[in-house]
Amino acid sequence: MAERRRVAIIGVGFSRFGERWDKGLRDLALEAGVNAIMDAGLKGEQIDAGYVGNMGGGALTGQEHLGSLLADYLGLNPIPITRVEAACASGGVALRQGYMAVASGMHDIVVVGGVEKMTDLNTAQVTEVLGGAGDQEWELFLGATFPALYALIARAYMEKFGATEKELAAVAVKNHKHGAMVPYAQYRREISLEAVLNSKPVASPLKVFDCSPISDGSAAVILAPLDEAYSYAKEPVEIVASAHATDTIALHDRESLVELKATKVAAEKAYKQAGISAKDIDVAEVHDCFTIAEILAIEDLGFFPKGEGGKATLEGRTTFGGDVVINTSGGLKAAGHPVGATGVKQAGEIALQLRGDAGERQVKDARFGLTHNVGGSGGTAVVHIMKKVE
Amino acid sequence: MAERRRVAIIGVGFSRFGERWDKGLRDLALEAGVNAIMDAGLKGEQIDAGYVGNMGGGALTGQEHLGSLLADYLGLNPIPITRVEAACASGGVALRQGYMAVASGMHDIVVVGGVEKMTDLNTAQVTEVLGGAGDQEWELFLGATFPALYALIARAYMEKFGATEKELAAVAVKNHKHGAMVPYAQYRREISLEAVLNSKPVASPLKVFDCSPISDGSAAVILAPLDEAYSYAKEPVEIVASAHATDTIALHDRESLVELKATKVAAEKAYKQAGISAKDIDVAEVHDCFTIAEILAIEDLGFFPKGEGGKATLEGRTTFGGDVVINTSGGLKAAGHPVGATGVKQAGEIALQLRGDAGERQVKDARFGLTHNVGGSGGTAVVHIMKKVE
Repeated sequence: MAERRRVAIIGVGFSRFGERWDKGLRDLALEAGVNAIMDAGLKGEQIDAGYVGNMGGGALTGQEHLGSLLADYLGLNPIPITRVEAACASGGVALRQGYMAVASGMHDIVVVGGVEKMTDLNTAQVTEVLGGAGDQEWELFLGATFPALYALIARAYMEKFGATEKELAAVAVKNHKHGAMVPYAQYRREISLEAVLNSKPVASPLKVFDCSPISDGSAAVILAPLDEAYSYAKEPVEIVASAHATDTIALHDRESLVELKATKVAAEKAYKQAGISAKDIDVAEVHDCFTIAEILAIEDLGFFPKGEGGKATLEGRTTFGGDVVINTSGGLKAAGHPVGATGVKQAGEIALQLRGDAGERQVKDARFGLTHNVGGSGGTAVVHIMKKVE
Repeated sequence: MAERRRVAIIGVGFSRFGERWDKGLRDLALEAGVNAIMDAGLKGEQIDAGYVGNMGGGALTGQEHLGSLLADYLGLNPIPITRVEAACASGGVALRQGYMAVASGMHDIVVVGGVEKMTDLNTAQVTEVLGGAGDQEWELFLGATFPALYALIARAYMEKFGATEKELAAVAVKNHKHGAMVPYAQYRREISLEAVLNSKPVASPLKVFDCSPISDGSAAVILAPLDEAYSYAKEPVEIVASAHATDTIALHDRESLVELKATKVAAEKAYKQAGISAKDIDVAEVHDCFTIAEILAIEDLGFFPKGEGGKATLEGRTTFGGDVVINTSGGLKAAGHPVGATGVKQAGEIALQLRGDAGERQVKDARFGLTHNVGGSGGTAVVHIMKKVE
């Protein structure tokens, strides 16, 4: 086994998430990239490689080749910037590649960005593009869009564990409560349990407020070897584990509809790499593309026993003062879900928490944080664990 | 600097390139993947990670998330497989990520694949999708497709160096001569200089036989730590350098139209990493998406002085018996250019050459080989150097 270097996050940047009619794909990416570089107190020429997570550049905007585009527009060429795509886990996978590049000594200072420009097309078109995250030939082509797939998961879960729509709704209420405190969030307002329960059905039992929105946005983090991290502006946060797992791309090929195996495999590897267990995590960003997805996530990550995630949420065990604070960013639900940006935003949010820079949404004494990013209906899961450097 | 492991190619596989009406995206990918795994004499469960280069899965076929899809269809999940995209350099960038994963000790046996399914759309649609490799807002949107961009390069080159259309045509003639010997090539037939010169104009001075075709196809290589490589079926080939550079995505922003700076930067890094110079290379696969591109490549890689690449080609200095044998695979021109597969095919072809397994197109006593993969009009370039293990 080759020796690996310890890797730290030394800078964080976000664009405002939302319907960003004022900005195209490249401009959005710049917004977070420049913010992260400034946060780290770096000059651009100190960066020697980059990764960018993006799902639908080609299908949503006609622009592929984002590595070259962003190296160019960030003024960073000729450094290598590599685009990676893993549907909604594109950002998480990009972070993992950046981590590997620094850990291996192949690169020193690496910018990892994620970006998605989704509002150039109409909702039906975006839904079709997002369907490419699943099995195009066996799901999308036959009409199974993502709300439909997650509705099947929700229905199976409710059947098996007697969970209620109220438990699902509690996820949305909690995440909007958190999102109201987040400067970059798409929806900075609270919603009531009744509002969620009475919202329009999308794919029963999922209603419109059970679903994350279509969003434009970007996020970026700067990575460096931990040994060198202290020479930069901000307190470093160490990435102590990085794991990526896959499962069948089609939902109907899974052994179980009520858990994501890829999450469990990635989490197990990550806890092992970090030498900790689920109970050590103080704050986590998990993939709540739909409310049911957060319930599965907090169970599959080991925070709560299978079948009890909804109840725990309803009881307030996943918010401030609870067992573990889930989605201080507001999650995909309230912060928004610019697909390629999400996994990087999660890392940025956790870095803010562990630095103590999360303002009114700060989790007190947070020592270990976790990010969980899912592609498709669970075909990919990426888990990272970050640690406050003491 | 962390210690790095030496990395070898231990298996190679190709699909047949061409208009593959019989196969969809996933089936094409399997064809090369299974061939490579069998060539290495591996079992699937020995593989612990993968990378796949693909440009237009979403825009050409509606299928993104190829990491999960291919892990699934190759029977390899839950291992992480990551899709990378860098336009026509997607395969080369995928290879570099695989190299880094093994060199860092993060993974041991890694499959690197490349695939593109291009013939599901018509030529105009494909041309538009490929335009996403350039600057969508400043080139494609205004009508500058790739044949147009490379025609501008060719015109500038001819103006500056007095090069002729005959010199361009000589690239196509030579590559078809090579391709006629290649089992997986799309066009296994020779063409005459007159046929090229008399072919229909596409974007003057480029004619149809100056252009690489639209192709379906896939390629895969298996990577392993060199120290462990001897336990597998085939003679290992060492990857002694891996470099990736970027330049402005738009052609009009470049300092020069007659060279690709990204190629020069990547080549310089690669030669330095390998501790050799251009004159040590016996065989190279270079990016001849258009005939002019091969001429630029063999100059920018240091094989011939600037302005003399066309003349050298016409004089037979880039074929068997010449200074360096360029594109024994037939290049993109004759082997075909399934975009995401190309960079991986180049590596597979060089591995065959260095193993001595290239049949009637074998370059005698080949010791060092080079691959050169370009994205867009030069926004990305990736150079790898391979060495026969002695």
